[in-house]
Amino acid sequence: MTAKSGNPQKAKSHDSAVKSLLPDKKIEEMGTAIVRDINIGKPPKFTTLTRTRSNVVFDQENGYLKLGDSTEERTFTNVSQSKRFMQTIAIASKCHRFVKENLHTTIRGLFYQLKFSLGEDIDENVFSEQAESNPLIEDLEVSLGLKREELNLNANRKGVLAGNVKIIDTFGNEKIEIDCSKQGRSGWAIPSDVDNDIEFVNVKAKYVIVVEKDALWQRLNEDLFWKKENCILITPQGQAARGTRRLIRKLSDMGLPVYVFTDSDAWGWYIYWTIKTGSINLAYIGSDVATPSARFLGVTMSDLDKYDFLNKLTINASEVDLKRAQEMLDYEWIRKHKEWQVELERMIKSKKKLEQDALQGPRLTFVDDYISEKIKNKEYLP
Amino acid sequence: MTAKSGNPQKAKSHDSAVKSLLPDKKIEEMGTAIVRDINIGKPPKFTTLTRTRSNVVFDQENGYLKLGDSTEERTFTNVSQSKRFMQTIAIASKCHRFVKENLHTTIRGLFYQLKFSLGEDIDENVFSEQAESNPLIEDLEVSLGLKREELNLNANRKGVLAGNVKIIDTFGNEKIEIDCSKQGRSGWAIPSDVDNDIEFVNVKAKYVIVVEKDALWQRLNEDLFWKKENCILITPQGQAARGTRRLIRKLSDMGLPVYVFTDSDAWGWYIYWTIKTGSINLAYIGSDVATPSARFLGVTMSDLDKYDFLNKLTINASEVDLKRAQEMLDYEWIRKHKEWQVELERMIKSKKKLEQDALQGPRLTFVDDYISEKIKNKEYLP
Repeated sequence: MTAKSGNPQKAKSHDSAVKSLLPDKKIEEMGTAIVRDINIGKPPKFTTLTRTRSNVVFDQENGYLKLGDSTEERTFTNVSQSKRFMQTIAIASKCHRFVKENLHTTIRGLFYQLKFSLGEDIDENVFSEQAESNPLIEDLEVSLGLKREELNLNANRKGVLAGNVKIIDTFGNEKIEIDCSKQGRSGWAIPSDVDNDIEFVNVKAKYVIVVEKDALWQRLNEDLFWKKENCILITPQGQAARGTRRLIRKLSDMGLPVYVFTDSDAWGWYIYWTIKTGSINLAYIGSDVATPSARFLGVTMSDLDKYDFLNKLTINASEVDLKRAQEMLDYEWIRKHKEWQVELERMIKSKKKLEQDALQGPRLTFVDDYISEKIKNKEYLP
Repeated sequence: MTAKSGNPQKAKSHDSAVKSLLPDKKIEEMGTAIVRDINIGKPPKFTTLTRTRSNVVFDQENGYLKLGDSTEERTFTNVSQSKRFMQTIAIASKCHRFVKENLHTTIRGLFYQLKFSLGEDIDENVFSEQAESNPLIEDLEVSLGLKREELNLNANRKGVLAGNVKIIDTFGNEKIEIDCSKQGRSGWAIPSDVDNDIEFVNVKAKYVIVVEKDALWQRLNEDLFWKKENCILITPQGQAARGTRRLIRKLSDMGLPVYVFTDSDAWGWYIYWTIKTGSINLAYIGSDVATPSARFLGVTMSDLDKYDFLNKLTINASEVDLKRAQEMLDYEWIRKHKEWQVELERMIKSKKKLEQDALQGPRLTFVDDYISEKIKNKEYLP
């Protein structure tokens, strides 16, 4: 690997710690404890971390969102918890079988398995609404110290990659080698699970560039930008899915600097912060999916000073953009970083924003020069 | 190719006819005609087909939505048309350069190119709203007899494929061979343009199965369903993008039967009809993107009779589902096809619907058997 670590990753993945037991063994251990409780006449229970907003904390030292220390017990004999306790155990039992069978499904497939074998008395709505079923699966993930991907539950996938990296995908009892520099116009579709049965070998790139929009990714891919620059070109295709966030983090752990390139607006900033610090919803796996060393490459309102032509390519900021910018100015982290204050204040004052697509104005290939120059000159925000 | 044509494709692609001139030559021809008009003192104009709903017709013989014969003139000296005439010509000029440069962008990239070189007097909103810019590009596509992909404008892409087919993607001056049976868990991401600089060779499959949901596609891909069945496994990931519709049609033109597998609900039926007959919005390229020979494999309400367990896996139909079913009963085509009437009436009466995910109820791999049995027994709807 030729990568040099620009910003050594501080946040430690919990992977190494929890992988001491295989997922099926962990589920069996949970089940054994419950049976033991029943046999000695104790109310069966398990413990999970509280995932309400009040227990989501920003880890100042490591720079990402994680859960605090507050825990909760789920007890079968507590009337308000017993139905959901039973459902959670049913989920654990199903996932145990998926792991043993080495087959994957989604939470929707899991719902129908539960409905099939537990009969019609299971209210479909408890499992059919993402909002209802998610907490139970998350309880299980946190309680077991496993991610849903390790319980053979695929999350939605989105995101594409091209670059000098090879992947060994153990799939259908074969080891399939995928060369991400030989995927043509399509790129390699980033899967839901990038940890199990998949290896990243021959990572011969110097850095990772994450481009918000697939359209821009295609533009850069057509120019073989990743080849000229020896980098890895990723698009999350908008907000990053779990698999893409995890992959970016893994590449960062290999020592590759990560640069994020989005629109200069509320949505673009949100995509950046989610990649960098994780999100409240995924705070329970923050240590695995956040990439605190990520840097914001652009586009920035300050680009208007450097690239004069951009001044005629700004568009009107929306109410949402302006409101968000105002909110962000109050963040403790932003108050510590002058560069970001300048950005936000400039949008608020001018009521204008800038899209990454605008860089195609003078010529389609200008965006290539923009990225490589900015990286060369270290012109990025923290 | 081992494929046998179950349902010979009747709709003739207009591709062969319009490909007589290269895209850049066609644009030059349009420009030359306009200059000639100006030189002899005639108001410059061009002709396009009317794309309002009143000129969208269902081609009974061939089974797809297309434009009728009604045409419209766009004239520079007509005050209500002159601005948009000018903008259309500007778009033609930009696309001409993209084709000459052999570089691709999107309508968003095109917008910024226009804004850059035509100055600030171009109202951004005319081009920034899809609803505003689309008609001008469509005017050009129809007038030139070219698809936007041939004008080097990428459309949104979505959709994934696995199976016994190889692709030669001429990309970055290289001919890249992509074996779609060696893409592991990811599959091959279907691009925006599947016609130019891309070839489908070694199509060693017997049929095409199109699965609405990516989750089910992943399920089937994990089981190597496409290998066992020697088929091509596609998911449009919901409603099919232009590129995926065009690809399905191309595979159909190669003689492969196409089966579509969706939820039994309003959205699932819509996805099927769009693949089969095209859509009103894309009626102007209907002959290229519709696959009239496509058949509906399921899931169907009639599955409830054959697979008893499904009766406890139905869920409530939504208001939208019921309203849509009622509307469809009035369609002339539906009135001709008893099988579809039975489907729709059954949903309306029971107020229940069925998702394709429900087939995972008894075991995760049941969906494999469902598909292969249905195809073997020719249990599909027209």
